Amino acid sequence: MFYFVIDILGTIAFAISGVLVAMEKKLDLFGVIIIAFVTAIGGGTLRDLLIGDTPVVWMRDSVYVITISGTVVFAILFRKKLRYLRTSLFLFDTIGIGLYTMVGIEKGVQAELLPVMCVALGTITASFGGVLRDILCNEIPVIFRKEIYATACILGGSFYFLLTYLTVKDQYAFLAAIVLVISIRLLAVRFKIALPNIYS
Amino acid sequence: MFYFVIDILGTIAFAISGVLVAMEKKLDLFGVIIIAFVTAIGGGTLRDLLIGDTPVVWMRDSVYVITISGTVVFAILFRKKLRYLRTSLFLFDTIGIGLYTMVGIEKGVQAELLPVMCVALGTITASFGGVLRDILCNEIPVIFRKEIYATACILGGSFYFLLTYLTVKDQYAFLAAIVLVISIRLLAVRFKIALPNIYS
Amino acid sequence: MFYFVIDILGTIAFAISGVLVAMEKKLDLFGVIIIAFVTAIGGGTLRDLLIGDTPVVWMRDSVYVITISGTVVFAILFRKKLRYLRTSLFLFDTIGIGLYTMVGIEKGVQAELLPVMCVALGTITASFGGVLRDILCNEIPVIFRKEIYATACILGGSFYFLLTYLTVKDQYAFLAAIVLVISIRLLAVRFKIALPNIYS
Repeated sequence: MFYFVIDILGTIAFAISGVLVAMEKKLDLFGVIIIAFVTAIGGGTLRDLLIGDTPVVWMRDSVYVITISGTVVFAILFRKKLRYLRTSLFLFDTIGIGLYTMVGIEKGVQAELLPVMCVALGTITASFGGVLRDILCNEIPVIFRKEIYATACILGGSFYFLLTYLTVKDQYAFLAAIVLVISIRLLAVRFKIALPNIYS
Repeated sequence: MFYFVIDILGTIAFAISGVLVAMEKKLDLFGVIIIAFVTAIGGGTLRDLLIGDTPVVWMRDSVYVITISGTVVFAILFRKKLRYLRTSLFLFDTIGIGLYTMVGIEKGVQAELLPVMCVALGTITASFGGVLRDILCNEIPVIFRKEIYATACILGGSFYFLLTYLTVKDQYAFLAAIVLVISIRLLAVRFKIALPNIYS
Repeated sequence: MFYFVIDILGTIAFAISGVLVAMEKKLDLFGVIIIAFVTAIGGGTLRDLLIGDTPVVWMRDSVYVITISGTVVFAILFRKKLRYLRTSLFLFDTIGIGLYTMVGIEKGVQAELLPVMCVALGTITASFGGVLRDILCNEIPVIFRKEIYATACILGGSFYFLLTYLTVKDQYAFLAAIVLVISIRLLAVRFKIALPNIYS
């Protein structure tokens, strides 16, 4: 139940972030809906395709489509109020990447992939929706240019495998990794920490 | 036989629309060929990947590759005459999306997906080739910005499930849905109907 | 062993070409890493997805991830020296597309696809990484605009099937095709041969 709530909150946050970007680009109603969907399910879709777990998850469970549709309706109706929610949205989004990272890792473990591949899968799950959103809106993906985002996923995912290697119980390691992803992301934004500049 | 002819006409129309966009962008011969292929088979490819029906359909049946290759040769040879064909092309394209929508839905039904997922699959089949074409040509996909396109697919696909729910015979519902997709698209273009503006 | 060395050299060359493009776009460290990976494994990933051979190859064998990671570290450390290596890089890249083409064709043959589909798979394997690199960097893919690149793959791949049709022993045909891809590419660049201009 707890995981489910977080998963849905993450989906909502990703969908809203898609709506915001699509509306900035003045896309039409259909464009906004598609960008919201792609942002919310793009990462999980690529993950499922890469490991061959098809039909992809959102096609098997309608809760994602229903959640995203409801979110888009809500976001468009209250589009003028959305700016006041920026902080909450950022929190949802951050919680979302924490959970999505671990969902992806879990799937990789089930598919018996090596830890490094699992971490890659987790990072893809958490970040690829945003990448697709930016490509469809004809932008260089924001996570390639700014802030610590995927880096948080990679560090958190690696921490999970470190803990399980140290024989920490799986569910504790799982939770600790989520907390680490979220903490790194929050601290990076709060203190404006970015990746080292490689151009100087 | 009837379906096959329409399918091929749709493939031709999509391929020509790819050639036209690629030539506007001054791509080289290979670029034009690729864009033509991607436009014609992109939607079906994504559909097959999402439901895990691989190798994807154009790899198993060479009729698509042959049709598209012939179309590209023809389109390049007669590139100066293509503008006179715009109306016929638009008709082919519209018939194409009608049929592609239902082909996608049919595949979804066979994969035992929920109706809403089938409609999504149909819409992806009909519209994703054009999306890929525009991404490869570095444009925001035209269907996110203008006119009723995917909306026609969604309404037609939903109508199909409504009819089958009302126990209409499958092949009649199939045909009625194709006619509806085509009609909505034609009427939308004829009377310049667009999606409601969400920015006012 | 021979194939393995060439494969790794190809992967390195593709990864470096990704680093170079990403640094031109001033992406951050994560962006550079991702573009390097995508350039090196994008073609093989799409190939595996299209034929349904999942998990995709780089997820099953860590040699690719290790090679690419090492290459990125090296390329960033010695980024100011990379321009002196341009000729060697071009050679690696050219050898890479020769081999990648045949790896893709081999996979297609194993999946019992028609020769024309195998050639398409080979061309995708060799060229799609570069296409993804350019899309992610918000450019029209360079292979759609310049030089003989995919054309070399297509001609080399077709030559392979011609030779096997003439009952040439498989490994000789394989090697001859690689040599042909490499030769066409080298000659095209050396003598500035491009595809015929279709816009005059």
